[in-house]
This record gives sequence, structure tokens and C-alpha cells, in this order.
Amino acid sequence: MALLEDLQWRYATKKYDPAKKVSEEDVAKIIEAARLAPTSSGLQQFRVIVITNQELKEKIVPIANGQQGVAECSHLLVFAAWDRYTEERIDDVYNMITDERGLPRGRFSSYTNMLKEVYLKQSAEQNFIHTARQAYIGFGLAIAQAAELKIDSTPMEGFNTELLDQLLNLEAMGLKSVTILPIGYRDAENDWLVNMKKVRNPVETFVIELK
Amino acid sequence: MALLEDLQWRYATKKYDPAKKVSEEDVAKIIEAARLAPTSSGLQQFRVIVITNQELKEKIVPIANGQQGVAECSHLLVFAAWDRYTEERIDDVYNMITDERGLPRGRFSSYTNMLKEVYLKQSAEQNFIHTARQAYIGFGLAIAQAAELKIDSTPMEGFNTELLDQLLNLEAMGLKSVTILPIGYRDAENDWLVNMKKVRNPVETFVIELK
Repeated sequence: MALLEDLQWRYATKKYDPAKKVSEEDVAKIIEAARLAPTSSGLQQFRVIVITNQELKEKIVPIANGQQGVAECSHLLVFAAWDRYTEERIDDVYNMITDERGLPRGRFSSYTNMLKEVYLKQSAEQNFIHTARQAYIGFGLAIAQAAELKIDSTPMEGFNTELLDQLLNLEAMGLKSVTILPIGYRDAENDWLVNMKKVRNPVETFVIELK
Repeated sequence: MALLEDLQWRYATKKYDPAKKVSEEDVAKIIEAARLAPTSSGLQQFRVIVITNQELKEKIVPIANGQQGVAECSHLLVFAAWDRYTEERIDDVYNMITDERGLPRGRFSSYTNMLKEVYLKQSAEQNFIHTARQAYIGFGLAIAQAAELKIDSTPMEGFNTELLDQLLNLEAMGLKSVTILPIGYRDAENDWLVNMKKVRNPVETFVIELK
């Protein structure tokens, strides 16, 4: 029941204690959960950008609707996905996979050809709809890993993706921002949400059983 | 390190033992992880459909590119997201939240009005791009919870969403399918992937540090 307890424990932290920093060891574990996330065709269509520079975090506050947690947190994680599929990106991943498994390169070429056939004829916008979805899997697992370590986090979509992409120069990396995740330690006395009951749809309405 | 070990243990199971069934207690825990998933504005824009009916599972095999795991698994979970935002859906969630927290209804009306302002002027297609993303958070956490219980699963996007929506009559529920997740127990002797090394981009290329 560990994961369920962690998910019950966590909440979208609204106020951080800026004096408390997450250890590098714990940050590495949170990133590792995202790195191990399953993704479509194993392509890992997203990356995690870790920001600790205070000046840079403060520049992101106005981009994120003035949410102060972005600056007060210990580390700001940015989840950014491939801006589009390319033949090279698909080949690079599958060359890594075959190399790591001791298989000849091209072992999965009928599969990668199919992927290219599907994705390369789509627009960059259609591609990004798909790559961004993958980032959410890693995003969720990073939040869960933080909770396991009793580290607070705040899942955020409320920011101007174009301005953040410009600020971080993501276009040059072939990436576009998807979500951001401040992590750190709560300032419980000044967090209006900390004692509010977690509310979810009851199981009866969340689940539809077809027997 | 529990979550990281679970993520290392899991793989996209290619062959299930159809004789081994997941207990209802364990299915409930897997669904609970999805139910507790954080979602944008806490709206829980997705549902989980649980299919155990063998005939129905077999009908889904051709819709899912002939992947036999869909029929051979113990339970097939379908993650389906709201087909669009409506005023009523947003109000229903926030009425539930205020009722559960003992707050007056309308306590968060300035926030819900802003959500309506943003989402109701978008097309249904734009809405669904957003609601579908939320389903991926729950999808990832369900996969992690299955792994914690040493239950195998296969994250799948490779199916015809329109045909599945029709078969399950999802339109009548205001939902559209996003992903499917067979769960069950591996048939290790007949699974080509089970002994293959898990491959991910190394930390050095997965993470971008801005200090």
C-alpha cells in the first residue's frame, strides 16, 4: 500500500519554505522515476530540466501567473517534450536500444519504419500532442517519487509555454515545455491548502465496470 | 527506493497467462492509484473502465491491431477522458469539493469562472487535448501500482480510438478513449521481451541542469 499512502499524503503545495532545500540525492531519485517512466514505443519523448538558479526561478514567476512557489521552492523541474518527431530521433533511440541489448542495429526496423510512416506525415503540432502526453506519465511518477521521500511538489500547467520556451531556449534543444513542478518543503503554517480534505470522485462514479 | 524498484521490475508484458486472474482487491488498488492521481484544477477529467467480459475483450483485439494481450490478460482497463469541458462538469466537481470540505458552494467561483472562460471558448478538440493529458497521469500511476503488487501490465496506445469508443458506447458517457492497459500475470516462457534489458536514455542526456 506504499504508493497509495504516498498519494494520499501529497497535495499541491501552495507555500514553500525557501530555506529548506532538497538534497541532490533525492532530486536524483525524483528524476530517476521520470526517466524510468514507460513511454510510447519506448521513445522517451521528453526531458527534465532542473532549475536551481534563484534569479532564473524568479524570472519564471510572472510567466507562471505570479505563482510564488516557482521561486520559493527548492528546485524547479520543467518537463519538456520533443517539438516533433524526426527520423534521426527515432533511429537514435532504437540504435541505443539495440546496442544496449547486444542486437544488430536495424533489428526493429520494420517497427521503426512504421513509426516513421505514422509520425513523419503528421504536422509538428500533431506530433507534439503525442509527445506531450508522454511527459505526463513521467510527471506523475516524479510527483509520486517525491511523495515517497516526503518531499512536497506542486504540479503546474498554469504558465505561458511560449515565454518559458524562449527563456530557457528550448527550441534549440528541440523541446517545448509541457508542465512545471516546483519541489521542496512546505511552509505548513502559511499554506491554505495543507489542511483541506483531499477530494476525489467516489469509486462508484470514477470506475465503470463492464462484466 | 520502493517506487524505483517497482519501475525497474515492470516491463510492457507481451504475453499473459490467461489462467491467472488478478484479485478484485488488487484491481481496486490499481484503480485507486489512478483515482488519487493529481489532475489539472482537480477536475479528474478521466475515468477508468474495467473490462473482464471475455467476449468483449476478444472484440477489442482487432481494434488494437491484433494484440492478443488484450484478450489474454486478466482485466483490461480503458482510460477515457471527458470529450469536452462543460459548465455543469466543472460545477459538479467544485460542488463536490466544497461539500466535502464543509465550505459554502461557490467558494471557488472566481477560479471556476476563470476555468470556464478558458475552456468553454475552446473547441471540443482543444478541450480533449487537455483532458486526455490528465488521463496519462493516472495511467502512469496505475502502472506503478500494478508493479508494486507484482502485477504485469502493458501500456497501449496502439488501437483505433473511434472504434473502441463506439464499441463501449463512450459517447453516451461523455468520454473518449485515450489509452488501454491490460493487466495480469506474464507467461514468461512465451514472452520475447521479458529477458530483454530495459533501456533508457542515460541521466546525462535525460536531464538538463540549469544552475
